[in-house]
Amino acid sequence: MKQPSLKNDLLLRTIRGEKTERTPVWLMRQAGRILPEYRAVRAKLSGFVELVKNPERAAEVTIQPVDILGVDAAIIFSDILVIPEAMGLPYDMVESRGPVFPRTVSSQADIDRLKVADISDDLAYTPEAIKIVKKGLDGRVPLIGFAGAPWTIFAYMVEGSGSKTFSKARAMLYRQPTLSRQLLGMITESTIRYLKAQIADGADVVQIFDSWAGILPPVHFEQFSLPYIQQICEAITEVPITVFAKGAYANLTEIGQLNCATVGIDWNTEISHARSVISPDKTLQGNLDPAALYADFDQIRQDTRQMLDAFGSHHHIANLGHGVYPDISPDHVRCFIDTVKEYSANKRSKLL
Amino acid sequence: MKQPSLKNDLLLRTIRGEKTERTPVWLMRQAGRILPEYRAVRAKLSGFVELVKNPERAAEVTIQPVDILGVDAAIIFSDILVIPEAMGLPYDMVESRGPVFPRTVSSQADIDRLKVADISDDLAYTPEAIKIVKKGLDGRVPLIGFAGAPWTIFAYMVEGSGSKTFSKARAMLYRQPTLSRQLLGMITESTIRYLKAQIADGADVVQIFDSWAGILPPVHFEQFSLPYIQQICEAITEVPITVFAKGAYANLTEIGQLNCATVGIDWNTEISHARSVISPDKTLQGNLDPAALYADFDQIRQDTRQMLDAFGSHHHIANLGHGVYPDISPDHVRCFIDTVKEYSANKRSKLL
Repeated sequence: MKQPSLKNDLLLRTIRGEKTERTPVWLMRQAGRILPEYRAVRAKLSGFVELVKNPERAAEVTIQPVDILGVDAAIIFSDILVIPEAMGLPYDMVESRGPVFPRTVSSQADIDRLKVADISDDLAYTPEAIKIVKKGLDGRVPLIGFAGAPWTIFAYMVEGSGSKTFSKARAMLYRQPTLSRQLLGMITESTIRYLKAQIADGADVVQIFDSWAGILPPVHFEQFSLPYIQQICEAITEVPITVFAKGAYANLTEIGQLNCATVGIDWNTEISHARSVISPDKTLQGNLDPAALYADFDQIRQDTRQMLDAFGSHHHIANLGHGVYPDISPDHVRCFIDTVKEYSANKRSKLL
Repeated sequence: MKQPSLKNDLLLRTIRGEKTERTPVWLMRQAGRILPEYRAVRAKLSGFVELVKNPERAAEVTIQPVDILGVDAAIIFSDILVIPEAMGLPYDMVESRGPVFPRTVSSQADIDRLKVADISDDLAYTPEAIKIVKKGLDGRVPLIGFAGAPWTIFAYMVEGSGSKTFSKARAMLYRQPTLSRQLLGMITESTIRYLKAQIADGADVVQIFDSWAGILPPVHFEQFSLPYIQQICEAITEVPITVFAKGAYANLTEIGQLNCATVGIDWNTEISHARSVISPDKTLQGNLDPAALYADFDQIRQDTRQMLDAFGSHHHIANLGHGVYPDISPDHVRCFIDTVKEYSANKRSKLL
């Protein structure tokens, strides 16, 4: 589909490694959670999953932070667990408990009942929302598409809910490695199709979230997470990819060698360490502590400036080190965004 | 108090860096959870907290794994949250939810209502249990005492329960750093008194558990966790100390410089990395993935041998990388323990 050219393409130029006039900024979970305008839309629908599946409303909340907060990118409002649902394993989002799967996967028979997702049949609502967003944005900022990493999706499908230990999912890796690989393969294939559909309808960048990478021992991350992320990175050639593997500190070197343009960094990782183990031609994204936005404005400005100094002037997309927490005030988010814009622009102009 | 000399002092000799005939082994959470014999004792009492406060019964479940599993150390059955309780902030252990504090700390007034724990008044039950354990063990193996690290205790006192993000506790570090330090100081002083009481009644080693170290950005770990652990390490001169800071991968170098004899390593940390950043005169403890015990016996043996090879023959106490999971079969735990004993003894005899 022909797209209008971007008025603000700072994110894309930064990903390509160009020297830019300032550092681009957006926030994980910027669509949803923190904005009263989001909660107003959400209140009209019966639940979170219903909002995800409603392209008009999903598009509306995707665009809100661009208007209200002034971020340099939109990220499509969706959920990583649409993939299991499209594979035949539906879920509910239960208030104060998180996602719950009535059925889970523990045997070959369970896997035989699943299928590789057919996007146009089972998951058309996200690409559809993307079309509407692109029209609404009209080239103001780029749109980020996303999916969960296969290991993280696997973890929910086997565990059946969030968990402190994901011990059922990790037990399956030890007890049934072949079965585990079969399921991971099906998730990977579904994810590639899903990301390609998002790109076909207008996603300018895609991000892979390995939210539960950090629960694996390094050797399991190498065996059961990294190869499937790598398959995705190799299959997606149309747009730049960002890989964010939360908690995978011990594997940052290998992550830095993936065929991706950008590596997301969590707030537990020292910026200097990330820069030292990841190839300098990659862009880094992150990594202010999400809890830092609880501080007063002066402190937020100070911490944000310190982060910008540590990343340096190029190959950096400012973000938090994880999704913004639901009870953070939009004013504090705006302070973070404005500080990134002003401080990085000032620094560049002095360097010129 | 005069103690009988130890028949099995492998743990203590290993901590001192002596060359020993084999690698000592014990498991975090070995007392409780996994043994049917534990559940039988627990069923006679109304709750977890009641068991913690009952010296006779706490002693009984402390000794069980020595008899039943053949570990090289006992660890006193207790809970890290006895410290807040003794400081004036009681809690309940709620089935399937974990600890819940009816009152929490969020202001100076809340702190003013607390006190530094008076062990003989408020926390006599643990030292009392230690006396009974020492009598029961009669020198068979050493006894490990323990306490939570000040940051982890702080996190529960402010948050009021377990949490995926501990965002209230982390918000306090940003918003009220001075108040935070005051509370951390009171926890530290209480903890030093508590550990000294445990040692006076017979603990041969003490371990500090910083279970929530990994949720802090490295700079906050350095400011709000490490200095208080260091105060404890400096105050406890009677017996060797083990520091286990789960998830503090980015700060492992600083942890290795603490005035402690042993550093605990979680399962997300590569053994070679830990050896390379921690001084070779320290003993390392860990770090098999707790989920590895879900595997079959052959796989457990293989993973355990691989871990022993990676740590090398000395300065190593075999353990899991976190507490044993509640649904692990005792047979699988025994397979781990027996493999450590046999394989490490065989390796040493070949080296001689």
